Amino acid sequence: MAPIGLLSQGILERLDAGELVIGDGGFVFALEKRGYVKAGPWTPEAAIEHPDAVRQLHREFLRAGSNVMQTFTFYASDDKLENRGNKLTFTGAQINEAACDLAREVANEGDALVAGGVSQTPSYLSCKSEREVKAIFKKQMDVFIKKNVDFLIAEYFEHVEEATWAVEVLKETGKPVAVTLCIGPEGDMHGVPPAECAVRLVNAGAQIVGVNCHFDPLTCVKTVKMMKEGVEKARLKAHYMVQPLAYHTPDCSCQGFIDLPEFPFSLEPRILTRWDMHKYAREAYKAGIRYIGGCCGFEPYHIRAVAEELGPERGFLPAASEKHGAWGAGLGMHTKPWVRARARQDYWENLKPASGRPLCPSMSAPDHWGVTKGHTDLMQQKEATSQDQLKQLFNRSSSH
Amino acid sequence: MAPIGLLSQGILERLDAGELVIGDGGFVFALEKRGYVKAGPWTPEAAIEHPDAVRQLHREFLRAGSNVMQTFTFYASDDKLENRGNKLTFTGAQINEAACDLAREVANEGDALVAGGVSQTPSYLSCKSEREVKAIFKKQMDVFIKKNVDFLIAEYFEHVEEATWAVEVLKETGKPVAVTLCIGPEGDMHGVPPAECAVRLVNAGAQIVGVNCHFDPLTCVKTVKMMKEGVEKARLKAHYMVQPLAYHTPDCSCQGFIDLPEFPFSLEPRILTRWDMHKYAREAYKAGIRYIGGCCGFEPYHIRAVAEELGPERGFLPAASEKHGAWGAGLGMHTKPWVRARARQDYWENLKPASGRPLCPSMSAPDHWGVTKGHTDLMQQKEATSQDQLKQLFNRSSSH
Amino acid sequence: MAPIGLLSQGILERLDAGELVIGDGGFVFALEKRGYVKAGPWTPEAAIEHPDAVRQLHREFLRAGSNVMQTFTFYASDDKLENRGNKLTFTGAQINEAACDLAREVANEGDALVAGGVSQTPSYLSCKSEREVKAIFKKQMDVFIKKNVDFLIAEYFEHVEEATWAVEVLKETGKPVAVTLCIGPEGDMHGVPPAECAVRLVNAGAQIVGVNCHFDPLTCVKTVKMMKEGVEKARLKAHYMVQPLAYHTPDCSCQGFIDLPEFPFSLEPRILTRWDMHKYAREAYKAGIRYIGGCCGFEPYHIRAVAEELGPERGFLPAASEKHGAWGAGLGMHTKPWVRARARQDYWENLKPASGRPLCPSMSAPDHWGVTKGHTDLMQQKEATSQDQLKQLFNRSSSH
Amino acid sequence: MAPIGLLSQGILERLDAGELVIGDGGFVFALEKRGYVKAGPWTPEAAIEHPDAVRQLHREFLRAGSNVMQTFTFYASDDKLENRGNKLTFTGAQINEAACDLAREVANEGDALVAGGVSQTPSYLSCKSEREVKAIFKKQMDVFIKKNVDFLIAEYFEHVEEATWAVEVLKETGKPVAVTLCIGPEGDMHGVPPAECAVRLVNAGAQIVGVNCHFDPLTCVKTVKMMKEGVEKARLKAHYMVQPLAYHTPDCSCQGFIDLPEFPFSLEPRILTRWDMHKYAREAYKAGIRYIGGCCGFEPYHIRAVAEELGPERGFLPAASEKHGAWGAGLGMHTKPWVRARARQDYWENLKPASGRPLCPSMSAPDHWGVTKGHTDLMQQKEATSQDQLKQLFNRSSSH
Repeated sequence: MAPIGLLSQGILERLDAGELVIGDGGFVFALEKRGYVKAGPWTPEAAIEHPDAVRQLHREFLRAGSNVMQTFTFYASDDKLENRGNKLTFTGAQINEAACDLAREVANEGDALVAGGVSQTPSYLSCKSEREVKAIFKKQMDVFIKKNVDFLIAEYFEHVEEATWAVEVLKETGKPVAVTLCIGPEGDMHGVPPAECAVRLVNAGAQIVGVNCHFDPLTCVKTVKMMKEGVEKARLKAHYMVQPLAYHTPDCSCQGFIDLPEFPFSLEPRILTRWDMHKYAREAYKAGIRYIGGCCGFEPYHIRAVAEELGPERGFLPAASEKHGAWGAGLGMHTKPWVRARARQDYWENLKPASGRPLCPSMSAPDHWGVTKGHTDLMQQKEATSQDQLKQLFNRSSSH
Repeated sequence: MAPIGLLSQGILERLDAGELVIGDGGFVFALEKRGYVKAGPWTPEAAIEHPDAVRQLHREFLRAGSNVMQTFTFYASDDKLENRGNKLTFTGAQINEAACDLAREVANEGDALVAGGVSQTPSYLSCKSEREVKAIFKKQMDVFIKKNVDFLIAEYFEHVEEATWAVEVLKETGKPVAVTLCIGPEGDMHGVPPAECAVRLVNAGAQIVGVNCHFDPLTCVKTVKMMKEGVEKARLKAHYMVQPLAYHTPDCSCQGFIDLPEFPFSLEPRILTRWDMHKYAREAYKAGIRYIGGCCGFEPYHIRAVAEELGPERGFLPAASEKHGAWGAGLGMHTKPWVRARARQDYWENLKPASGRPLCPSMSAPDHWGVTKGHTDLMQQKEATSQDQLKQLFNRSSSH
Repeated sequence: MAPIGLLSQGILERLDAGELVIGDGGFVFALEKRGYVKAGPWTPEAAIEHPDAVRQLHREFLRAGSNVMQTFTFYASDDKLENRGNKLTFTGAQINEAACDLAREVANEGDALVAGGVSQTPSYLSCKSEREVKAIFKKQMDVFIKKNVDFLIAEYFEHVEEATWAVEVLKETGKPVAVTLCIGPEGDMHGVPPAECAVRLVNAGAQIVGVNCHFDPLTCVKTVKMMKEGVEKARLKAHYMVQPLAYHTPDCSCQGFIDLPEFPFSLEPRILTRWDMHKYAREAYKAGIRYIGGCCGFEPYHIRAVAEELGPERGFLPAASEKHGAWGAGLGMHTKPWVRARARQDYWENLKPASGRPLCPSMSAPDHWGVTKGHTDLMQQKEATSQDQLKQLFNRSSSH
Repeated sequence: MAPIGLLSQGILERLDAGELVIGDGGFVFALEKRGYVKAGPWTPEAAIEHPDAVRQLHREFLRAGSNVMQTFTFYASDDKLENRGNKLTFTGAQINEAACDLAREVANEGDALVAGGVSQTPSYLSCKSEREVKAIFKKQMDVFIKKNVDFLIAEYFEHVEEATWAVEVLKETGKPVAVTLCIGPEGDMHGVPPAECAVRLVNAGAQIVGVNCHFDPLTCVKTVKMMKEGVEKARLKAHYMVQPLAYHTPDCSCQGFIDLPEFPFSLEPRILTRWDMHKYAREAYKAGIRYIGGCCGFEPYHIRAVAEELGPERGFLPAASEKHGAWGAGLGMHTKPWVRARARQDYWENLKPASGRPLCPSMSAPDHWGVTKGHTDLMQQKEATSQDQLKQLFNRSSSH
């Protein structure tokens, strides 16, 4: 099913050639629902404890159209694994190795690349030095080099400063480096705007920049557009990627869905439909983003929808589309005539789905405890300012 | 992990002894999202095509607390497999056999029973004779006997008449027989009230009766209560089971979620949270129902929530609770202090989750094309009457 | 503008001749918003204190199409005027007289009849005897006879028993008697169903029966239909009237909007549009109700909408329609082209108006303190039962 | 009830002395609901046709706490009176005279000032010259001088250019001049930001500047704050006023509620409660605004709520508060105990009122036909830009 021409090409060759690259979805949320990840610490020990479950999820994303198998190594740094009472009997290295093996095994079943992933560290938030933080990333690199991943992703950084440090470490491996911040249009937690964040990351050596997590697809696409404008204005060159939430977050402020009262156990009403994903994929493509994937909340069918929307551009459909049919075409085989009548694009495109929850509102007032502590005094300053802005925003957009 | 005392006991022994039996969730919806089932025909050929995917889902439910592995044989009758242009290269027998093997393999990994499942047939709806319809069920029984399942479930029947025929066929195997209709408080599609349906099914030989699918948990519990009252009033004896949707359906009429405009591809905003499942499990238990499971929309974490709510009654927690913690206790290890502050029962119990969809309503106006054609003229009569009732109901409960 | 033929005909002559009679709207809520009535006691001393304000409201309803000027004498019984710390310097007789004069003055400006109104008493609720309660109504009758009103309305009774006593007193005057309970389909506060209530009231001598207040228009129409069926089944004869709220109350239980958390100061989001009123008027007419008016929440434009919807049946439009135009036709003169594009029936009929309140839900959980104490032990019994029913209802229709 | 000290002081003396001035509410919407104004043309011929109705509304606002009786002369320019097929038999001068007499009559009953009002003209929109447009305002001034109003208000201008012309004409009378644009934070229809608009208007001679209509209270307060900052930055001096809608408009774009699909006949669900008005009054006061009133949607009880919230600052309550009681205190006299339990501030402050409309959303997608044509090409440019901004905004804040 995989197109011949793409085989054994690297991520940069693909992007340089104008190919679309489809990412996978978020493993920690998907595996939490399947029973293998604990919400709170969100650590990936399942790579060792339950390899079948992790392998199966990789396969589902591959089948849904993903070109990248990202190692299930989120928060797999030693400082995070022992953070706040999370007691694990595995070292970071053990988890990283097991995750690499699983990703490679499934990647080899198709045309996918393996991306080794690192993410922000508690060490940075507790004001450890640049040297100490970099040492953490370095340890993970040792595994990724040993396991020979195809490229690297530094993802889920709230502070561009830490992300820059990560890029500098990843860069030393010689592998292609992608980096995504978990920020929205208001910028990082120190108040650095998206455009400036992107410039700093490209200057640090990243070839692919973008955002992941924390906000819904259209907000993330908007943020990456701001990054792209910054990079182009600085006459730099980069590729762009986006891996958003699969949750609607119109009511979020600068820190994203973490602040929503529904995080993380009552987000169900916000889950995007597959049709929402069609819109997302199209908007991301129109914005010039060519690495398009997902994060928390994405299930395989969400990635499939992205792959189906971009089927014309890619020239083929994912394997899982054999069990779908464009825009609900499979409903043509349903027993009820009124369900058969829904086997058409305009029906699903225009539907405004009800929540079935008449006692619940459509929007929430996010928690406003301010942003997580970090390195500098700028933080406190930013906090005060953003609180004011948020309040104004809130007063404007809310009603009661 | 499984409590010693239960091993090798049958379903009736367990229920007679007052044990709680936790069912699994709906496979067709869960596997559709994972890419292995086609919405519309909803047939279970994945049991042959993708056994790993089916096995993994069985394991997740087992780990979440399910005591029953139901064979993935929904709509696996020959007449359904070739219905409306669905072209399959497998016979019903082949699918049923593969599904039995998968269910048994995983059941043996824990303390679970295997239940062979049959469901309503297109033959009944197209007015085939009792003999013809029964022959279809008989073919499936041949496989279930050969594979020696532990008991049988006839599920998802809209007409009590067809369900009765199924029970009569299943009964001949000598295995325990459970039967669930997909009806609400208004009764079956011929207008037979739940109480009368239950009496007929018990008289036909079913030892366990109840409802599955089509309505949300509290509506299903209410319907089973009506069945129980009917059985008790008739001085009969039965056990009760309930396997509802994991979707809120306050706006449904007699035919359930099939009529909702969101069926089946935009139901996301209606998905129950794990906390909704706690309420469901408690209500079902208080109603005297002892076989408590799920149907479409249930993911493993929903079943885990049922098992956690009923932990005190069962005396143990499911394996998957090692990755959970009661009422969000795992959040105590989160990095953000305001998320840590949510690690408590009253927070999640009282939260009214927002949809994040300000342009969407809370309720839908269901399609009212009338019920699916069936055997008798009563149908048309019922149709007219129920339309009127629905309209009144709708006028009452809607607003605009 | 008034059709010649109707002049000087009485209420019964009109109804017997098959004429439509349009009532007015609720004075206490309208005058509360204008600053002349105090929410809580809801007493009508403004008839003396601010006659201009009361006269103006009468005129607006007359102009909107009302055929009846109901005296502003709600809760104007002596026992109510001094209830719970409400200190008034006027006697009930004084208020009743002033109100009669105002109603007559405006009625004479058009083709309207004057209806003297009485309502339920605190004396009944505090278990005074039939004799005592009747004496209160009798005092009001003395004024109405002296002022020679055209007919009498006993309205806003929660208990059919007290309403029956009122009808018996009113009947003695020889004037035509109308009576409305403030009940819904579940019946009065002692649990007497609408059909039986209606039969008792007709047997007590009422020529016109129906409901007012407490529920939204379609719920009230449904209740009057139940009354009508009861009366017809008993082979009695009556005319029917309905004067509902102008608030959507899909979430109310047996005691109506009093139980809603929004009562009485945050009901704004529930106010019916004029287009909702068109539907109401049509449904009421189709149900065979010929006295169609309004209660709390009705403003003059709501009554005008009723009169416009029933314009074809009445053969003329109300005076106030000179400032309207059917279905928004006046918008054809608006400066903005997209507003001019809304000057059409299907636009307004199909619009689902947004609340502009994203943090607010669509439905409320009503207070369930049980019904107000009354005469008998049946009450307590009813209370328990209805609480159970409500809970079931609530569980069914709510979702969270 | 009126405080002695204020008597016979002019508007500027009051504001210079730091007094609070409370405006009235919008007459055209209030009188449309009472049956005297036609939606579409929105012209004020009722001043002649139905003086009792207009006088009564003036009295209600006076009683609610208004210090200003604004002449009912909205859209009373000759070019508007004959616009788009609106056929009136009165001249603008006749209407303006009648309106002045009514306002003065009621103002004299209390401590109120009379403000002569002019508003934007169709002549400006159809590109008439400055001379022609000014001539229209001049004609109205002749009446206001003859009738000796206390001060002048130019209100409801979408273009600061036309407003400036109006101020220049009004200024020539020697009367104090207030001016309000119907704009939001995005500025006027040519894209001039609020700060710059305010500076231009002050430079043209206005002593009081602000906004009215088109947006909800908090949005209007925010806009006036932007104006104030602009004036202060320019080292000019002015007083500030705000007269917003009584409708929630979180979903509006630059042209305000005109674009909402609910305008003007289905805005009911958006009506502010009295408690929303408390928040508004406090926010306006905190922003340094001292002339605080209302526009479309305001009923007398809304103005009373403003006057009650600012009672401590003013030192007295309005006359109409004799029929209210702070924060629902009057409910202490209600017959139902659970309603009596609501006689407290925190109950009403925290209530999130339900709409009772489960089939309706909380937000609307406004019409985006672009802004009304005006004088310059800037318009088209602005239109394109703002459409893009809106789209982005919409994508961000909406969800589906």
